[in-house]
Formats: sequence, structure tokens, C-alpha cells
Amino acid sequence: MSGHTTLTVDLGERSYPIEIGRGLRHRPELFAPAVRGGQVVIVSNETVAPLYLEELRRTLSAWECHEVILPDGERFKTLETVSQVFDALLARRCERSVTLVALGGGVIGDITGFAAACYQRGVPFIQVPTTLLAQVDSSVGGKTGVNHPLGKNMIGAFHQPNAVIIDTETLGTLELRQLRAGLAEVIKYGLIRDPGFFSWLELNCAALLERDDDLLAEAIARSCRNKAAVVADDEREAGQRALLNLGHTFGHAIETAVGYGEWLHGEAVAVGTALAADLSVRLGWLQEGERQRILRLLAASGLPLAPPAAIAADEMLRLMALDKKVSAGQLRLVLLRSIGQAVVSADYASALLQETLLTACSGRQG
Amino acid sequence: MSGHTTLTVDLGERSYPIEIGRGLRHRPELFAPAVRGGQVVIVSNETVAPLYLEELRRTLSAWECHEVILPDGERFKTLETVSQVFDALLARRCERSVTLVALGGGVIGDITGFAAACYQRGVPFIQVPTTLLAQVDSSVGGKTGVNHPLGKNMIGAFHQPNAVIIDTETLGTLELRQLRAGLAEVIKYGLIRDPGFFSWLELNCAALLERDDDLLAEAIARSCRNKAAVVADDEREAGQRALLNLGHTFGHAIETAVGYGEWLHGEAVAVGTALAADLSVRLGWLQEGERQRILRLLAASGLPLAPPAAIAADEMLRLMALDKKVSAGQLRLVLLRSIGQAVVSADYASALLQETLLTACSGRQG
Repeated sequence: MSGHTTLTVDLGERSYPIEIGRGLRHRPELFAPAVRGGQVVIVSNETVAPLYLEELRRTLSAWECHEVILPDGERFKTLETVSQVFDALLARRCERSVTLVALGGGVIGDITGFAAACYQRGVPFIQVPTTLLAQVDSSVGGKTGVNHPLGKNMIGAFHQPNAVIIDTETLGTLELRQLRAGLAEVIKYGLIRDPGFFSWLELNCAALLERDDDLLAEAIARSCRNKAAVVADDEREAGQRALLNLGHTFGHAIETAVGYGEWLHGEAVAVGTALAADLSVRLGWLQEGERQRILRLLAASGLPLAPPAAIAADEMLRLMALDKKVSAGQLRLVLLRSIGQAVVSADYASALLQETLLTACSGRQG
Repeated sequence: MSGHTTLTVDLGERSYPIEIGRGLRHRPELFAPAVRGGQVVIVSNETVAPLYLEELRRTLSAWECHEVILPDGERFKTLETVSQVFDALLARRCERSVTLVALGGGVIGDITGFAAACYQRGVPFIQVPTTLLAQVDSSVGGKTGVNHPLGKNMIGAFHQPNAVIIDTETLGTLELRQLRAGLAEVIKYGLIRDPGFFSWLELNCAALLERDDDLLAEAIARSCRNKAAVVADDEREAGQRALLNLGHTFGHAIETAVGYGEWLHGEAVAVGTALAADLSVRLGWLQEGERQRILRLLAASGLPLAPPAAIAADEMLRLMALDKKVSAGQLRLVLLRSIGQAVVSADYASALLQETLLTACSGRQG
């Protein structure tokens, strides 16, 4: 793929474009329609800012441009960090028409979006995601928020960005481990609703890890098209949007158990996906052959398939029960009927979930 | 008035009732339609909880009921206090279907509403306002949030309650100073859009201060009817909802200058209203005779008419410039054309605003 692709997240008056292409961070005309007032504030972190902040400042030079640089890492995705953003916005006398620009990965996007949701009861923001995970998942859809010591993403808001501007060149500076973690969310779209994409990933996984530009751009566009369709149908997660959480209830438990930031979110989701597939097979819903394909693709992407050895099965279960997906005390999970078809269900024997966890937490990888 | 009045805030699928009457805190059937899941959490403060918490717990005994008791006062309307509410909700494993119940004045309502807006990206809440100010103004309309050292209500969200349940009996335990402060917001509705109500208040002000039950209920209902109409037309304050801020830009500057909690919000709004009237007369928009009527009604309500002596005019101006109503550097103010007609305007000579502030801050009361 060359040039530049525009997708739209169709949400009525809150609709917004997703722009995907090389070098988009240099194109002020893509930012202009999404900037409301005369002030912009770039929120970034200590890893990304040295790479791209000055370039982005030049692109935004038509506006009064400030910046807030946060420490890097999931463990800083807290209310305290959001409070630092508020301090900076107020110290610079930012008005209600200020536009925030999130330059970084999923943590920066989630923090910036939540700050935008709450500053003066809501200001616009633009996502400029620089990790694969943020480009294919967290920057699209308006879920914003921070973690609490007792649970991930427990504090937040739905607040849609005014634009998502994905410069695929920023993947050139991304750590390989981060690239692999992003693939976990890419694979998710194939599993929950796009079997053709899953097969395409089986063919192209190796080339993606070698950062073939055109293939990465295609993987991002196909992922965003799936995400945009799901979000447009179900902005507030009343129904099918919950399918996007495949592997996440298991994954969040792992992230909470090991401490935020030890495992990457995508790594935890990969394990969660493997566990969801395992339980789905035990329920007789998924064929063992399909589970093997899933495990092979995750492994080929360099992703883990089992929880860290230190976590016991009962600890996993306890942490999963804290998840937002609990309703009336019953844990709802995203499970698989086949590659390309997922369901949200609380209708499973809890003994089977325990088997899945006991098997996985004793170290076997299925 | 006896029995009980129901008004509706008409916001499509987010519409909700305002119930007004004596002893409503004892009526579970008014709460039931607004409770979504099986858990309720009452958020209250150290002043109100000893008076009404046990009664309300009994009313809500059909649900799993928890409580969070916060310190009392505007100076606790901070992000740190909201964070304490999150801690309590997570420690009690509250689910996404939990319903929060704000039992207290405007501070409790604003904190609880903001916590409800952000907990797990949004849970329902019910307002049970126990001060006149909260009953006639802050509990209706979905503005929630907290203060920042650099500005009032700078962090927050629009999040509509599922119901507002106003038990007029709770005014029986309200300090007289708080009752007076509430009248400032009641008078506001007369000034901005209801001249008949203003005249009614001129006649009945003394009886209201003596806590005549029927008259208080009527004043609350007429105030809420005005507020509900404004909010239904303009939920997000794109237009006429801004008129509800009459006196508030001046008032917030006073509150910030003296430190949150020294002056009551309504007291600061009363002074702000007097200053807005003064500037309106200087602009030739309001007749001096009408200004005198306004000052007389504020004075009869026992409200202050001038800022504290310690604040200089240039300090007032500097603090007003931090207000959310600033757009492109120009301060928009709510000003009066007559009793019953207000306008939002940035179209005034700043020299006249300075005259208003210099006159007021030198201690003269007009």
C-alpha cells in the first residue's frame, strides 16, 4: 500500500476519520479539521517525545502549541498522572476550546483521552498512536481511562477523538516486543469476526514481524475497519462491542497479578486468547484443530501462551472476578465458536473454567 | 403545597424525574425505578450522615447498601476526594451496575456525580439534595465535577442523574446561612427568565426565610421547572444554558480568591449578581430602578452585595480571566437587559467592567 487511506468511524455527529499512511505526522491539513480552537497541547512520554515531538510541533505550528511529557509505562496510567495533565493545562491557561493531541502508545492515548473528557467537562482530542497496539485498537473507539490498584481501566469515560492519525513510519522505531504485543490485538479481529483476515495473518505473520511497510499498513487498515464497524454499532458496549474483549478478562487478571507494566497488555491478551480457546474447546464449542491454529499463530508472532509461573489458578480466578464484565456476580467471558465467530457468555460450567486455569497455571501450554 | 410534585427533565432517553415533597426520603418506590442493579452506595458527608443516613438506608433496604462518608465542605471538592470514592467502590467490589446515591448538598452531589461518570466509565446515580442550593440548582442538569487550585469546577463531566429526589423536610435542619445562600440561585431564575417569579419572591422572601413549608416547596418547584426547561433545550451549554451562570464568573473569582469554603457559593453568586447588574446599568442595558429592586431582594435575603474588602479589583479581573467562559481570550459575561431577561455577551467596553470592579472593591455597595 502506498499513499494514504481514510476510514470513518460512523457515530452520527461524533463521527471521525482514521487516517492511515506513511509520514502523516508531517501533514497539517489532516490535523486542521480536528482542531477546534487556537490552542493545542501535545501529550507524550519520555520515550516517544525525543523521536517525534519536534516534528509534530512543526506540523502544528499554525496553533499556539504546548506540550506535557509524562513518564513512560503502564504503571503511570493513574489518576495522579491525569492530575498532572490538568495541572499543566491550567498553568498554561488552556481554554475550553483547547485540543489535546495524544502522541504515543495506548497508555498515552488512554490518559490523554480521559484528561480531554474531564478538562472543563470535555474538550476535543486527536489520537496520534505510535505503537501497533494503539494504532489497531486503543486509539479507536473512545474508551479512555486509567487503572486503579484494585483493577485495570476501572476509572474512565467514553470520549471519542476528533481524529485518529496513524503514521505507519512510527513503527520503524518500535521495539520488536511491542510490535509482537500489537499483533495480539490484530489477531483478535480475525478470531472474533473476520476469518479471512485470520488466514491472511497466518500467511503474512513473518513478513509483518520484519516490518514490511505495505503489509503493516494493510494489517492496520483491516484491523481499524473491523474496530470501526463494531464501535459504530455499539458505542457504549451494550452488546457486540464486548466481543473486542476476547482474552481481556484473563489478560487483565495477569496484568494485575504481575503488576502493571511487567507484562505488556498485548502479551497478557495473547495468553488470555489461548485460555479462552482452551475453555471453548472444553465446552465443545471450538474444534481442537482450530485451537491449534490459534496457538500456532500466537506462537509465530512471538507471543506467550501461558500465564507467568508465579500465578496460581485460584489467584487468577479471584482477580478475574474483579473485572468490569462481572454482572450480578457471574463472570461473563468472550468465548469462541470458531475462528471468526465469538460469543459473550456466562453460561458455562465453572468447573471447566477451573480446569482451564489449573492446566494453564501448572505450566502446560496445551 | 402538600403531597408531592413530579417534574421531568426532558432529555430523550436520558430523561429523568424530579420528585419534590415532604418525607420523600422514606419512599422506596420513588427510588426503585432509578436503581439499575442490586447494589447501591450512599455518598454523604459528616454533617448530613448523622441526620439522614440511617433513614435512607432503611428506605434502600431492598438493595445491597453501602456508604461512603466524606468530610464536609467545598475545600474537599477535589480529585483526591473523588479518588477516595473510587477506592471505596473497588474495595466493596461494586459492579458496573452499582447505583450511587448523593445524600447532601451541592458538593456531595458534584463529587458523587463525577465519581458515577467515571467509575467503570459510567454508572447511574440518584441525587438526594439536602440544601436549598442543591435542590434548586446543582442537583438538576448533569453538571458534575471538582475544583482545582487554579479554578473552580475545572475538572468534571456531563452526567445526568437517573432521578432527583427532593425531600423538603431536610431544609428543617439546614443552617440559616445555607438557606440564604440557596436563595441566591432561586432569585437567579427570576432574573434570567421568569419576571413573575421574581415578583413572587419580593412578596414572599421573608416567609421563605422563616421556612414556610408550602412556600419553600413552591419556590423549589418553580426553580426546578426553570432549570429543567433550560437544560432540556441545551444540555451541553452550547447556548442559553450559559444564562444560568448569571453572577457566577464574578462569584467564582471571589471563591477562588478567599479560598474554597470561606464564602458559600450562593453568597459569592449574590455578589456576582449585584456586580452583573451594576455593569448592565453602566452599559445602559438595565434601568437603575431595576438594579435597586435586585439589590433590595438580595439584601432582604440576607445576602452580601460586595466582595470581601481584601480583594482588589485587578485581582478579581485576573481570576475572572481563568473562568471557563473565556473564549479566544475574551471574557463572556451574563448580563441583564431587564428583570427576567439576560444575555451572554463579550461585547462591552472593558473600561466599564473595570469601573464596576473598582467601585465594588473599594467597598461601596452601589
